[in-house]
Parts: sequence; C-alpha cells; structure tokens
Amino acid sequence: MTDTVLIGVDWGTSNLRVFRIGEGGAVLDLRADPRGAGGLAPADFPTVLAEVAGDWLDGDIPVLVCGMAGAQDRWTEVPYRPCPAGLAEIAAGLVRAPDSRVRLVPGVGRDDGDGLQDVMRGEETQIMGLLSDVGASARVVLPGTHSKWATVKDGSITDFRTFMTGELFGAIRKATILGGGMGDPGVDDAAFKTGVMRGLSEPAVTAALFSVRIEKLSGRLKPESLADYLSGLLIGAEIGAQGAPDGAVLLVGTDALMERYAMALSFAGFTDVSAVGGADITARGLWRIWKASQS
Amino acid sequence: MTDTVLIGVDWGTSNLRVFRIGEGGAVLDLRADPRGAGGLAPADFPTVLAEVAGDWLDGDIPVLVCGMAGAQDRWTEVPYRPCPAGLAEIAAGLVRAPDSRVRLVPGVGRDDGDGLQDVMRGEETQIMGLLSDVGASARVVLPGTHSKWATVKDGSITDFRTFMTGELFGAIRKATILGGGMGDPGVDDAAFKTGVMRGLSEPAVTAALFSVRIEKLSGRLKPESLADYLSGLLIGAEIGAQGAPDGAVLLVGTDALMERYAMALSFAGFTDVSAVGGADITARGLWRIWKASQS
Repeated sequence: MTDTVLIGVDWGTSNLRVFRIGEGGAVLDLRADPRGAGGLAPADFPTVLAEVAGDWLDGDIPVLVCGMAGAQDRWTEVPYRPCPAGLAEIAAGLVRAPDSRVRLVPGVGRDDGDGLQDVMRGEETQIMGLLSDVGASARVVLPGTHSKWATVKDGSITDFRTFMTGELFGAIRKATILGGGMGDPGVDDAAFKTGVMRGLSEPAVTAALFSVRIEKLSGRLKPESLADYLSGLLIGAEIGAQGAPDGAVLLVGTDALMERYAMALSFAGFTDVSAVGGADITARGLWRIWKASQS
Repeated sequence: MTDTVLIGVDWGTSNLRVFRIGEGGAVLDLRADPRGAGGLAPADFPTVLAEVAGDWLDGDIPVLVCGMAGAQDRWTEVPYRPCPAGLAEIAAGLVRAPDSRVRLVPGVGRDDGDGLQDVMRGEETQIMGLLSDVGASARVVLPGTHSKWATVKDGSITDFRTFMTGELFGAIRKATILGGGMGDPGVDDAAFKTGVMRGLSEPAVTAALFSVRIEKLSGRLKPESLADYLSGLLIGAEIGAQGAPDGAVLLVGTDALMERYAMALSFAGFTDVSAVGGADITARGLWRIWKASQS
C-alpha cells in the first residue's frame, strides 16, 4: 500500500469500481461491485464503500469519488460546474462527504446563457484522464446508455451533448412492437450498416424507426438481423446530428460498443477515429483532478 | 335489420368494433369487444366475430372487415395495394376469408420504386370514408400509436409516412429513466407547448429526449408536468418533419388526441386545421369500398 497515493471510486448508476491508484494515475488494483448509485440511499454509500474498498481505507490515503454518487438524492449532491470546465474548475468544485475524508467530483453542466441545457457526471473525469492521449483539444465521444459528444479545447470541456441512444435501444426492444422476436445485436454487420445509413439519411427518427417493421414485413431483413439494424439506425441518427464528418474523433468506452461506433463513424465518412479503453482513463482522471486540487 | 346493407368490421390490433351500416354508410348500431387481432390465431377470427356480431350475421348481408385481421399470420393475409390507391384499387384488392362470405380490405403500401417503404392497415378505410368531407384532395393526419400523415389527391392515397409517436411515448415512460415518477399527460398545457417548440426546433430526437431529464433536474418543470412536455416533444418532432406549415390539414381520430395535435399544429404555424371523429368515418369508408366493389 506504500505506493498508493489515492483511492479512486467510479460510482455509476448500476455499478461501483474502486481503484488503488499510484503516482501518475497508474491502476495498482481494482475492486468492483454491482451496488450502483441508482439503488442506494444517502446513508448506504459509506457502508457500501467500506465493504468494497475494505483495508484500502485504512490509514489516511485520500479518497476521491466520481459519478452518480454526487447526484441529487444520493451520497452528497455536488453542483454541476459550468462549461468551460478543465482540471482547475473541476478540482475547485470538489465537495466533502459528511463526516468523512471522502471527496466527490462535480459533474459538468452546459448552460448556453439560457439555464441548464445538458449534464454529465463521470464523463468529465474520463475526459480529464484522456488529455495526455489526445493533446489538449479533441472531439471526444463516450458511447453508452446516454452517449456524450464533447468538445475539448485547451484542456477544458467547452461544449457537449447527450444522446439517449443506448437507453432508447433497450426501451424499444423491451416495450414496442419492434422488439417482438428481436434477437441480440452483433450478428449481422450488413444489417448494421443498412441501419446506420438509414439513420444518417433520415432526420426524422420517429419515422425512421418504423422502417424496422417494414424491413421485417418486406422480408428484406431476417428477424435475427433486426437488432443490428435498429442499433445501426439509432447510432446513425446520433452521428448524423453532428454535421459534416470532419476532424478527429476519439472514442472512449468498452470494446464491443467502441467497435460498433468505429464502424458507424467510418460509414458516415469520418476518417480520423481512434479509441481508448475506459477503466484506466477514469483512474487517471481521478488522479489528475486530485493533483489539481492540491496545487 | 331490413335497413342494414352491410356489416362492417374494424378489427384493430387491440380491439374490435362491428357496425350495422345503412345506405349511405350511416351507422345504425355498434358492438365492441376487446379481442383485438393482435392476440388472435387465424382460427379464432370467425368464432370471435360470430360471438360479437351475433344475430347481425343471420341472413346474407355482406360482411366487410378492415384493419389488422388482414395482416400476416392473422385471419387471412391481404396483400398491400400500392400507392396511388383510391376506392377502385382498394375495392379490387378485397380478399374472401376461407369458407366464409366475409371479405377483408387490403392495407396500402408505399413503394417508391425501391421496394416496400411504409404500410397502413385500417387507415386507408378511414381515409376513403373522409373523402366527401374534404373534397377529393387533402393532407390527412391520423394521430395514434403509429401516426400516419397521408397525402390524398383526386380521391387516391398518393403518399404517406408513419411516425411511431404514440408507441415511443409509452415505451419511454415505461422503460427509461425519463419515466420515473412521471405522471399522465393532459395537466399542463404550458409544458406541452414548451415540449412542442423543443421538438419542432431540435431535429435530433434522441438528443432532445434528454431534455426531459434536464427540465426536471433544473427545476424548470415539476414532475407532474413532464408527461405533457414529453408528449409535446414527440408530437413536435413529428410535425417538424413535415416541412413548412402550409396548406390544410385534416385530423382524424379520438377527441383527446386530436385536441393535442390541433394545439401542436397551431404552435407550429398551421392555420387551416380541421378535425373529424373516427368511428363513423370508418363505417362510411367500409360502405364506400363495398359499393365500389359492386360496380
């Protein structure tokens, strides 16, 4: 434990990861648990953290938490920092949990002068972790339940937008006629491409979705290919909303999802796409924010 | 029964209505049942119809069915008639149910030369029932689970598009984070208008949807107003996809939904909007199609 400089915690809605972090943001060890912030009351957080982190909390190593633990009605609400937000602004917004040495990272909010327009909690820490990989400026895409497209300039998050792509995919499969008999995605890349092209070319998503049914009725797609088509359609709509496919894009996330987004971006004409895995990036972001808070 | 010229049946996915129809398409009597076509196997249809229509089937009065009874895997599949489709084309596509005097109305399909692109089953009958109300040409909107926007020229359906507005509204409420704590719509017209304006101005629906969460987080909308905002947003996106708000629009459907669409169309700048109730229109459409099949 002597090489540990920070205990980092990534507390998402549906799971929890605790990192033992060394100098430079290196992950020395990792403990995970399914008790996400979404299902916990405020008083549960210190108990769950003590159980999962265990002996890592002995001594006085600082503890820094990012993600949904800082949302309203969770451990301790941490106000959103407005864009532009870089390391200094985020570090200045850390909030201490009651009766604890644990500190929580603020989310970032976009306010175009007309009140709050968008929010992130957790992605700001990933983006801070990325900076040395991409230089100080980049277009960063974080695919997922609530996909984020963020613009980073000179080390600050200057703008971002959330797309409910992953969550809509799940809801449509679960609760509409389109989901009847639909399998899992990942089996038909051609159907995925057809969906992406449809999503890119049809701005009216609520009309384009009906094409899932038409592809099935017409026999052009087999039932087992429909999940790929639907996934492509929603990802295509997300990419199509970004305008012309110019400039570099950096994808951050899990392998399977990044692969789908990388394919879709290439169908859309993006030529400069790179990808970075998520867990180490979060730990590095926590370490950087903690360092910035010390200076 | 001597004045009855046709037994008309509107067999939707989730309910069944049987009309005793007189000369000119007048509804003399109506019997309804919750056994929609969505839950029935082919062999169930004659049994259910006999139970619901009862003594109306005595004698040899013709019986004409529209709606989902003619879909694949239901009573008898009736192929879609291509656009443009008017009374003559639809009447020419009637199909007789096996061992029965019952005939089924075909749905209409849109094929832009590139294979089937959209379908309707049941709405074609409503549109045929409307014609005398609107002259031979109109833009007809049939709001609902799968809203249809149809162009009618010289008595024929020449073009149409389906929006999954109603079904998406239900799926988002039931199966996403946006639905948590959400009440029913119809309580806050101002929130509905805010949603419509957002849907009209934001072409990226999957991004606009996240604003439901932002309106709640920011405190701008109370939880009980969110269903109206979401409903407005989805209806606004549907209307926004139609282009400039010019020309007359005829709404067909149930009172509550038509009122919401009429409000939204007015927010969008449509100035010539009229509305017609649905049940009598369907009976009149069945009667007209039957008359056309006799000539």
